[in-house]
Amino acid sequence: MKKVVILGAGYGGLMTAVQLQERIAGDEAELILVNKHDYHSLTTWLHEPAAGTLHHDRCRIDIRSLLRTNRTRFVKGVVEAIQPDVSAVRLADGERLEYDYLVVALGSEPETFGIQGLKEHAFSIRSINSVRMIREHIEYMFSRFRNEPHRSDYLTFVVGGAGFTGIEFVGELADRIPGLCREFDVEPSQVKIYNIEAAPTVLPGFDPELTEYAMKVLSEKGVIFRINTPIQECSPEGVVLATGEKIPSSTVVWTGGVRGSSIIEKSGFEVVRGRVKVDHYLRSPGYSNVFVIGDSSVLFDPETGRPYPPTAQIAIQQGIHTATNIKSLLEGGELQAFHPELKGTVASLGKGEAIGMVGQRKLVGSSASKLKKIIDNRYLFTLGGFKLLLQKAKL
Amino acid sequence: MKKVVILGAGYGGLMTAVQLQERIAGDEAELILVNKHDYHSLTTWLHEPAAGTLHHDRCRIDIRSLLRTNRTRFVKGVVEAIQPDVSAVRLADGERLEYDYLVVALGSEPETFGIQGLKEHAFSIRSINSVRMIREHIEYMFSRFRNEPHRSDYLTFVVGGAGFTGIEFVGELADRIPGLCREFDVEPSQVKIYNIEAAPTVLPGFDPELTEYAMKVLSEKGVIFRINTPIQECSPEGVVLATGEKIPSSTVVWTGGVRGSSIIEKSGFEVVRGRVKVDHYLRSPGYSNVFVIGDSSVLFDPETGRPYPPTAQIAIQQGIHTATNIKSLLEGGELQAFHPELKGTVASLGKGEAIGMVGQRKLVGSSASKLKKIIDNRYLFTLGGFKLLLQKAKL
Repeated sequence: MKKVVILGAGYGGLMTAVQLQERIAGDEAELILVNKHDYHSLTTWLHEPAAGTLHHDRCRIDIRSLLRTNRTRFVKGVVEAIQPDVSAVRLADGERLEYDYLVVALGSEPETFGIQGLKEHAFSIRSINSVRMIREHIEYMFSRFRNEPHRSDYLTFVVGGAGFTGIEFVGELADRIPGLCREFDVEPSQVKIYNIEAAPTVLPGFDPELTEYAMKVLSEKGVIFRINTPIQECSPEGVVLATGEKIPSSTVVWTGGVRGSSIIEKSGFEVVRGRVKVDHYLRSPGYSNVFVIGDSSVLFDPETGRPYPPTAQIAIQQGIHTATNIKSLLEGGELQAFHPELKGTVASLGKGEAIGMVGQRKLVGSSASKLKKIIDNRYLFTLGGFKLLLQKAKL
Repeated sequence: MKKVVILGAGYGGLMTAVQLQERIAGDEAELILVNKHDYHSLTTWLHEPAAGTLHHDRCRIDIRSLLRTNRTRFVKGVVEAIQPDVSAVRLADGERLEYDYLVVALGSEPETFGIQGLKEHAFSIRSINSVRMIREHIEYMFSRFRNEPHRSDYLTFVVGGAGFTGIEFVGELADRIPGLCREFDVEPSQVKIYNIEAAPTVLPGFDPELTEYAMKVLSEKGVIFRINTPIQECSPEGVVLATGEKIPSSTVVWTGGVRGSSIIEKSGFEVVRGRVKVDHYLRSPGYSNVFVIGDSSVLFDPETGRPYPPTAQIAIQQGIHTATNIKSLLEGGELQAFHPELKGTVASLGKGEAIGMVGQRKLVGSSASKLKKIIDNRYLFTLGGFKLLLQKAKL
């Protein structure tokens, strides 16, 4: 029996497993899914529990509840190294998994671009554990302020990066402030939220009319922007900007960039910013039985010559596609090339507000916000059907 | 019109104000009540919000809601100094209040007995602000542990002092742990609660049979006791005990003792451990128009020659008594000596468990726990009648 090992149960890896287990017969292949936690995180939602506007349990799904145990074996473990030359994977607890086909879907890590102190002193929105800590840290800062009212840095929140995660996080955080102020007896005017972006615009690459709308909505909620302004240094005292401006802050959240999982580079794969440049079958160069999908890989659009963005949407499509391709290989068939179907993009700006592009159509306000929920719920349905939708849907 | 100024709206001061405003005619005297916050704190309940088992809003009462505005003027302010020689009080914002009669009811501050690092690195259970910070700190430590699982100090909680507050706090904290473990994905066995006491027993002065019962109940809940063991030093890394034992901990809560408010000593009153030794009319020596009540004063039992304990029960009785005495002075009458009526004592050990002495009768378990609630509710009724009871009662 052939062995298919899938590393990572994020958007790409879990979708590969769920789709593949439906397509193979019981004696056709053994599926092994490896993940650090026994839950799948809805990573694109994590700005909400980070701000405290949604409970983190709403953003995770028990992996075993999605697996057919007679098809797929789940291994809770941390991948230590991939050994593509001998077609094996080593886990941190010493377990060794051999494979005929490997799917690497290990996601991303924060990229700090060498900015001093950022790695040590900034939080990042990347897991249930990290966002639960951000939420608790924010609350703790509010509680400390009442005991040391001269410490305005306790109530100053700096979000580095105004890409998707940064913009969505400041929107949620601004929504949370009035409730925090009531809980901790703080005047709302004492709270400051800064969003710092090195690029000349928020949401670089997005439609200018929509980014202007986003900045207007968020500014009205109290977010202070510093655009075209790189962060020069981060310390426990706050940040120093390239302009020389110092912002004293006890809470810096870095959302400015991601790179591929460091395990891939350590395992000897050739990478660009931690990502494997895959072919149009999503295979790694040199190892035709190793697929790399989602944020662990980079794929270039043959028409524009530019990489597709590292989004959940593409990771999900790559997962489905890879399941089809592996099924085909198991049957001795041909591989199909991957062509993403870009369905449009929506960025939330907090409760009831969003901006979106669907094809050439621009959406703002409550219609964009509703579309965002539909996209989120659609994923749940694809992954786990009505059962999962009932458990986790956003209403 | 005579001016009566009351400093502090704790158990003693607020009760003086509430009782006095009922007894005087509108043109007889002007009552001024000064307090740092615009709420009264139910200080004896604060171990509960500190542990997170009761919301802090349940433990505070809007002072203005209890005052008759045509009789009593409320001043939100911090007392900076009392000037008894000129019968005036100076507030931090510069306001000066003159008085004919003064009631000093400024409560207590933590007493650290010179133990190194305790003042700087330990929390204390003394106000809404301080307990809200303890609750948030505990949660923050749980959230950090999941990101740094080698830091067992994040899940080690040290409570210094096994008097009333210490014992009641560890009881609540032990009750809270299972919920915190669920919220933060922590194994309950990884959490440690230490209760450290220098005296040879917990609850010094309490009946030995009852203290043994308390230790048994709390040990079963997981509390680890170090009795007869002074703390030698406290640092950000934890505590060192006199035995040489080091307990790494990120959360040290000191409940080991209190002393009178430092304002009293700074104002030139003669004090013992920050407290004014008052006569049996509760007046300060040398100033017959200055009453000092509650934790700001110390009164000796003429029968035993020992001081009465600094409890809410006695502060409340002193407040009622002082209101009567001031009313009498306003009418040119005589002062009555104060004799406390010791109604018994109950210490909570967490949900549904307590120990108590009522006269010579010992109570344990649910009957003691129910008695505790009756005592708490009785105070609410005395202070604010049915209205307050309906708002804040413990059921």
